[in-house]
Amino acid sequence: MAIQQKLSLMIPGPTPVPEKVLEALGRHPIGHRSKDFQDLVEITTKNLQWLHQTENDVLTITGSGTAAMEAGIITTLSKGDKVICGENGKFGQRWVKVAKEFGLEVIKIDAEWGTPLDPENFKTILEKDDKKEIKAVILTHSETSTGVINDLKTISSHIRNHKKALSIIDCVTSIGACNVPVDEWELDIVASGSQKGYMIPPGLSFVSMSEKAWKASVESNLPKFYLNLKSYKKSLSSNSNPYTPAVNLVFALDESLKMMKDEGLDTIFKRHKRHQLAVSEAAKTLNLKLFAEENHLSPSVTAIQIKDVDAEKFRKTIKNKYDILLAGGQDHLKGKIFRVGHLGYINDRDIISVISAIGNTLVELNKISTREVGEALKVASLQLKET
Amino acid sequence: MAIQQKLSLMIPGPTPVPEKVLEALGRHPIGHRSKDFQDLVEITTKNLQWLHQTENDVLTITGSGTAAMEAGIITTLSKGDKVICGENGKFGQRWVKVAKEFGLEVIKIDAEWGTPLDPENFKTILEKDDKKEIKAVILTHSETSTGVINDLKTISSHIRNHKKALSIIDCVTSIGACNVPVDEWELDIVASGSQKGYMIPPGLSFVSMSEKAWKASVESNLPKFYLNLKSYKKSLSSNSNPYTPAVNLVFALDESLKMMKDEGLDTIFKRHKRHQLAVSEAAKTLNLKLFAEENHLSPSVTAIQIKDVDAEKFRKTIKNKYDILLAGGQDHLKGKIFRVGHLGYINDRDIISVISAIGNTLVELNKISTREVGEALKVASLQLKET
Repeated sequence: MAIQQKLSLMIPGPTPVPEKVLEALGRHPIGHRSKDFQDLVEITTKNLQWLHQTENDVLTITGSGTAAMEAGIITTLSKGDKVICGENGKFGQRWVKVAKEFGLEVIKIDAEWGTPLDPENFKTILEKDDKKEIKAVILTHSETSTGVINDLKTISSHIRNHKKALSIIDCVTSIGACNVPVDEWELDIVASGSQKGYMIPPGLSFVSMSEKAWKASVESNLPKFYLNLKSYKKSLSSNSNPYTPAVNLVFALDESLKMMKDEGLDTIFKRHKRHQLAVSEAAKTLNLKLFAEENHLSPSVTAIQIKDVDAEKFRKTIKNKYDILLAGGQDHLKGKIFRVGHLGYINDRDIISVISAIGNTLVELNKISTREVGEALKVASLQLKET
Repeated sequence: MAIQQKLSLMIPGPTPVPEKVLEALGRHPIGHRSKDFQDLVEITTKNLQWLHQTENDVLTITGSGTAAMEAGIITTLSKGDKVICGENGKFGQRWVKVAKEFGLEVIKIDAEWGTPLDPENFKTILEKDDKKEIKAVILTHSETSTGVINDLKTISSHIRNHKKALSIIDCVTSIGACNVPVDEWELDIVASGSQKGYMIPPGLSFVSMSEKAWKASVESNLPKFYLNLKSYKKSLSSNSNPYTPAVNLVFALDESLKMMKDEGLDTIFKRHKRHQLAVSEAAKTLNLKLFAEENHLSPSVTAIQIKDVDAEKFRKTIKNKYDILLAGGQDHLKGKIFRVGHLGYINDRDIISVISAIGNTLVELNKISTREVGEALKVASLQLKET
């Protein structure tokens, strides 16, 4: 098995990892009950709160983003609870499955894959709920499967107005890529994963929990053990973990959060925005169609349609020729779209490289002329310049 | 925060990690849906089967050993199921908690901490169960909290004779330290964790599942999502994972399993046995009492009683002076015992070092004379020589 030594990860996770972070990852582990590790838990927790723009608890779990979402749901809800689930992609779909598995009564608000959820639908249903039977609204902020970002700011304002319902939000590909002010938007439960904007390999996930979420957790009757966030909160009071955490990934997290603080939230968000614009504008210039509605493009991943060419073959060609890994379409979109990740540790060169690779490959397929590749690069460069 | 650069981890996990494995850990991640990663899943799965001495499926989860045990329990059992839980330490206690949390009816077989579970108790209860109402027997092989190894060979023979009940075994500190022939003993569900005999940092855990366990899983009605092993089995058929796995820890796993294969199972088991004997015999020579019954000493951790000295202070002294991390006692044993881990990547020098450090510290406390330290090292050396 040949592991590529100069692979460029342009997928929405795992994302590229800075050398400094890899070095931290490769350090010899320490005891997870030691003072040294407690110090690490303390500082990473503080920096996670900074990243989430919150004073809420932010808990670190060893597991994937799915584990974090499940933890948020089962820690706060009870069997038979009525919840709204937003569904306009693969991940929204997954949260419906989780909710149903745990016996929740799901009111589904959906939208075509590639289009955003309509905040008005949330407003209508929440306003009608006089009896305050709806216990939570579960949705995905940035739909990784389609490249759509949902209007969380507006939807969360409707949830706030309801007063009773908790917001349980999958921010896996939005935290660290665009503005998610947890306290300002009063988001109760926010889940995310390490292999995304955090710039570290997969294995850790994060859940921020508001006071309101903790209050709800007292009544929760769903069976849970490893993913019971109450245990994590209890341990966090002594900067510890209920179960052995992935110590080396916490070393990496510490380094990456420091890098993020050095860069600054606003600069990080602007960088992602520039990259998103460069990729989407270049794609259009290359005569490709964006899969997601243009006013709702995710800051972290751009889904691109390709006609008369198998998207799977297309991205395989780009992998083999240029060692750039793109993501494919999921489920019914397989072969129809490819997705360019521009999330985390990505610089302007990565963006220019992926556009060149896509452009050149289209030229070789006689889909466009070389002139269009040049144009696309020019369009991208203009977007990259704007700060 | 100062991370010790020459720390010796003599705790029962995280255990020391070979440099080669740390190097693998610090590699740049690859896509978890790529062919390269599928190849890794294929080879590590085969090598995990070798380590487990089984043809059963061995599944890799991102999570701790507790997650793996919970996964085994909730994938196969249903609410109200009657189970036997063996409890003679902190981990046995934990599985009782998990079983009760999920609404199982627990028949507890216990023993004083420091003593082994009596196989006869299992035999009696299982033989009386004419109606075959007992659905599983849950127990811990090597009780990390007390340094006791339970007689799994005999207990598993009683479970086999019952025919109906599944064996669900916590082998977290026994797999890779002593003989656990999964197929020969017909163990249905065996859970373990990466930061133990596997010689890699925490973050991955493993569950082997027999055909009988999979059959039981069809009827299971406990709610589950992230820890539903059926999803892992389905993905494994294409050498994949249902959720994003800790890719870099899988790189590390691949390296460590290769090292284990090079050393050979029998050599690994003998090394652990020698180290266990050296530590326990030396401790007695140093006038210390073993906490566990001598015929049931765990191959991976030795619990040592210390009189008239606070065990927590004692191990802090050893940490500060020699940079050797020992484990403390848990719960009511805190301050009364310390535990020496000799699990995973440990060589004879580590054993001699820890004995010297313990001996010297006792001399400084005027508990023993220097003569006894010399004697203890001699006793240890004799054990280390025997192959």
